[in-house]
Amino acid sequence: MGENDESEIIEHHDDEEMEKRRTSRNHSHSFLESVTSSEDKNGHSSTQSSHRLLAYSDALISIIATVMILPVAHTKFQDDEELKESIQILLTTKVAVYLMTFLIVSVAWAAHVRLFQVIERIDDTLALLNLACMMLITFLPYTFSLMATFPDNFLGILLFCACVIVIGLIQAAIVLYGFSHPFLLNNHIQMSQNQAYYKQNILKVIMRVPIMCFFASIFSFIFFQLSYVLLAIIIFLPYISQSLKWIRNKAIGGQVDESPDSMLFYTYHPIEPLSKERVEAFSDGVYAIVATLLILDICENNVPDPSVVKKQFDNNLNAALQEYGPEYLAYFGSFATVGLLWFVHHSLFLHVTKVTRLMGLFNTFSLACVGGLPLAYQLTQEFPRGSRNELEAVQVSCVIIFFAGLFQLAMWVVALFTERETLHPYVRYGGREHTFMLAKLSLYPCVALGSFFLTCILSRFSAQIFHMMEIGVPFAFLLLRLLVRVMLALLKWLFCPGRPDVDCSPVEEEDSQLPINDIVT
Amino acid sequence: MGENDESEIIEHHDDEEMEKRRTSRNHSHSFLESVTSSEDKNGHSSTQSSHRLLAYSDALISIIATVMILPVAHTKFQDDEELKESIQILLTTKVAVYLMTFLIVSVAWAAHVRLFQVIERIDDTLALLNLACMMLITFLPYTFSLMATFPDNFLGILLFCACVIVIGLIQAAIVLYGFSHPFLLNNHIQMSQNQAYYKQNILKVIMRVPIMCFFASIFSFIFFQLSYVLLAIIIFLPYISQSLKWIRNKAIGGQVDESPDSMLFYTYHPIEPLSKERVEAFSDGVYAIVATLLILDICENNVPDPSVVKKQFDNNLNAALQEYGPEYLAYFGSFATVGLLWFVHHSLFLHVTKVTRLMGLFNTFSLACVGGLPLAYQLTQEFPRGSRNELEAVQVSCVIIFFAGLFQLAMWVVALFTERETLHPYVRYGGREHTFMLAKLSLYPCVALGSFFLTCILSRFSAQIFHMMEIGVPFAFLLLRLLVRVMLALLKWLFCPGRPDVDCSPVEEEDSQLPINDIVT
Repeated sequence: MGENDESEIIEHHDDEEMEKRRTSRNHSHSFLESVTSSEDKNGHSSTQSSHRLLAYSDALISIIATVMILPVAHTKFQDDEELKESIQILLTTKVAVYLMTFLIVSVAWAAHVRLFQVIERIDDTLALLNLACMMLITFLPYTFSLMATFPDNFLGILLFCACVIVIGLIQAAIVLYGFSHPFLLNNHIQMSQNQAYYKQNILKVIMRVPIMCFFASIFSFIFFQLSYVLLAIIIFLPYISQSLKWIRNKAIGGQVDESPDSMLFYTYHPIEPLSKERVEAFSDGVYAIVATLLILDICENNVPDPSVVKKQFDNNLNAALQEYGPEYLAYFGSFATVGLLWFVHHSLFLHVTKVTRLMGLFNTFSLACVGGLPLAYQLTQEFPRGSRNELEAVQVSCVIIFFAGLFQLAMWVVALFTERETLHPYVRYGGREHTFMLAKLSLYPCVALGSFFLTCILSRFSAQIFHMMEIGVPFAFLLLRLLVRVMLALLKWLFCPGRPDVDCSPVEEEDSQLPINDIVT
Repeated sequence: MGENDESEIIEHHDDEEMEKRRTSRNHSHSFLESVTSSEDKNGHSSTQSSHRLLAYSDALISIIATVMILPVAHTKFQDDEELKESIQILLTTKVAVYLMTFLIVSVAWAAHVRLFQVIERIDDTLALLNLACMMLITFLPYTFSLMATFPDNFLGILLFCACVIVIGLIQAAIVLYGFSHPFLLNNHIQMSQNQAYYKQNILKVIMRVPIMCFFASIFSFIFFQLSYVLLAIIIFLPYISQSLKWIRNKAIGGQVDESPDSMLFYTYHPIEPLSKERVEAFSDGVYAIVATLLILDICENNVPDPSVVKKQFDNNLNAALQEYGPEYLAYFGSFATVGLLWFVHHSLFLHVTKVTRLMGLFNTFSLACVGGLPLAYQLTQEFPRGSRNELEAVQVSCVIIFFAGLFQLAMWVVALFTERETLHPYVRYGGREHTFMLAKLSLYPCVALGSFFLTCILSRFSAQIFHMMEIGVPFAFLLLRLLVRVMLALLKWLFCPGRPDVDCSPVEEEDSQLPINDIVT
């Protein structure tokens, strides 16, 4: 075993190497480094890299944002009433509140991202403060449920606002703690001369939302509709303040930024980067919980009761389970759709180097649509086969998938506008990888749109068409490289048939050095 | 904005730098690197780092492993029957099946970890195959539910085995695909001469579990008890085969490994490392979903019905909500406990450099206990205040928390046995950080044990004691550094009162260079 042991020791050293690299990537000193580096030696030995704390927070926030669909999805429909009517009620109140709360939670998440771009190292106190913050964020869905059930009662709004205000106070406490222990701050601020200015500016930005919520809670006593308006403003505050600033700058005529230095972390400039890693982690969380929400329902509702099996099916479990056939199909279809939307997202982010704020917004919209999928699947399996309601449920599913795909495409288009900063060179406009990516991104919108129109025409086969679409799409992805190749060859042949050696498609210089992978089959 | 733009461009370059570092940390080439490095240029441009795929898989598997507690937690108890009896039924059947399935899913996860230690780069085909694998893994909880509801029916076992067999086949397909595209393999195997041997060995290990399941499914027709025994063997197969090998080696007297080279990835040696990063990701997923499972229940069950509020409470929502007071308390208590157990886990893994297989096993046990917490909380709020059942529910909670903490402590003890390989130098046995870590780890077991005995004595105040414990523990963590300092000073004063300058506690040489952080307050 001697050789084996040796290799293990070598691996161990490798691990330490990797550890160092990882933490230096996070702009932060690892525990090891903070211990061995001379400047941190005096009393800072408990400083830790914030990497895992952030991953855990991302997981919690993404689950919470998505779980909010459940009270909506579990709304009971009467089979005899027209779905159209109940859909209208649903769309106007519950779905609106779901979307609003998803956006509010993602605003809280964005604030968390910005906060921990300032605080880059943590210690035990900060970890515990962050957990307290998380506890209140996970309580938000309940206040949301109250608001959805009693939209005209002030108590829901009041509880919601109370949570947001306490979250804001905890975040302010984290900032104050961070500035009183400067070795926890990021290096840029740590070395800056005007730390006091930073502190003031950051606190001002953080306290904006709690103060708005404070007013919303006061208005909830007087005129509760105004509270909802205020809460809606909170979501779009970043974009409103950004556009106001932009208009002011245009009106005055110059870039009158008081301190460009301070803008690095606390502006709402549309091309200000979010941490790409955290956007990925948050998205992964949403996709993962959506993929598993359905099996959760299936585990709870589709296990037949032993007494029922005994009475109705003569103890024949097989016969009892056959009743649930459509549910199983819906589950696999749902998982395939969510999995492939994740796959497209994953492919997209492989090519992206930086996430601008506008891309982050489109990503949130796309995720909010993905979060709506459990509702769609609940609807498709709720109604009897071939009924008019089922048709409409399938159409709702198509619309949700269409928009989820469309917002992903929008992210890509936005990235292309600032491609020098946001994309790797080899996928920039015109290359073959670019074409392939575009095909991947447009596959789901196209398929969803296609099946939507097909269900309109062939109304009798709507569910079949929908499930065929879902099962067919993964194979379409496998064939996509082949398809793109054939298409490009076809284009080439159509437009310049005489010169087979000249590449007519708008291929950039990088592309010629990047032959596409052999066809995947 | 000129300065601002410049800094953004610089940041962009930093991002690219970081991107490179991150992927090189994963032992894998990023897309960028694979494109620019000369050896990969020929036709491998679609190769991708597997980092995010693995993070997503970890999230899915951890959610699925934990969600299985729900059918157990939602078992309805009759208030009038003695809890003792129903607990016994619960413990003997459902909880056993829950634990078994948690362990089986974590075996599937460990197999996934090992598989992607061999396959280090992915392309679109592998990503899709992995998603198919995930789809089947997420279906396992349903087959588990069937097994738990109909333990003597063969259909549940059959479905379970069918899933496991298909998962095995997909993994085999992944291995075959990987070996037919060698640039996807890890560098060690890629450069090795005997790739065919590796392939054979890996396939043999992968196919072991499906073959066992195949036999289990055959026995389910004849004698289903044997199937359960076989499934239990699958879980402990790694450890059984390991101990058999160890015994054989002891009996023969030499280390007769056929090929030490091949043992690097596919043995079950207890100090063989699991990927630390993936262990963390998996644990984070479990802690995150457990923390949010309770709010999910609260959102579903504790929003009063508008008609009930109108009838029973005169439209007074406030009065209606006061009925749910204990549930809110249970939620906050549960979140605090899960959050702090995560916090201890996080502190522990800051000090760990490598995760051995035995540590991984204890981690799984600890996580399985944490996954049982929703059950405990369901129990504590199910029964009326002050009843005998409530007392026993609280005691069950204490036992679960005790074991969750104990297994974390066990991980630490195991790490200490091989501390040269598994721990950072500054926390090795005897140092102050070591003492502090030990105090952190033993806090929960001690508190749980203490409140267990207190509830035995003061049976009337059991729930109050329990909730006080939960609310008190976070403050105990904040005071812990202070407590440890005082304790050490006390020990010093007790054993060598005359020499205040000499450190009597068994402090190693590193410790004197590592002053403890100033007291956290």
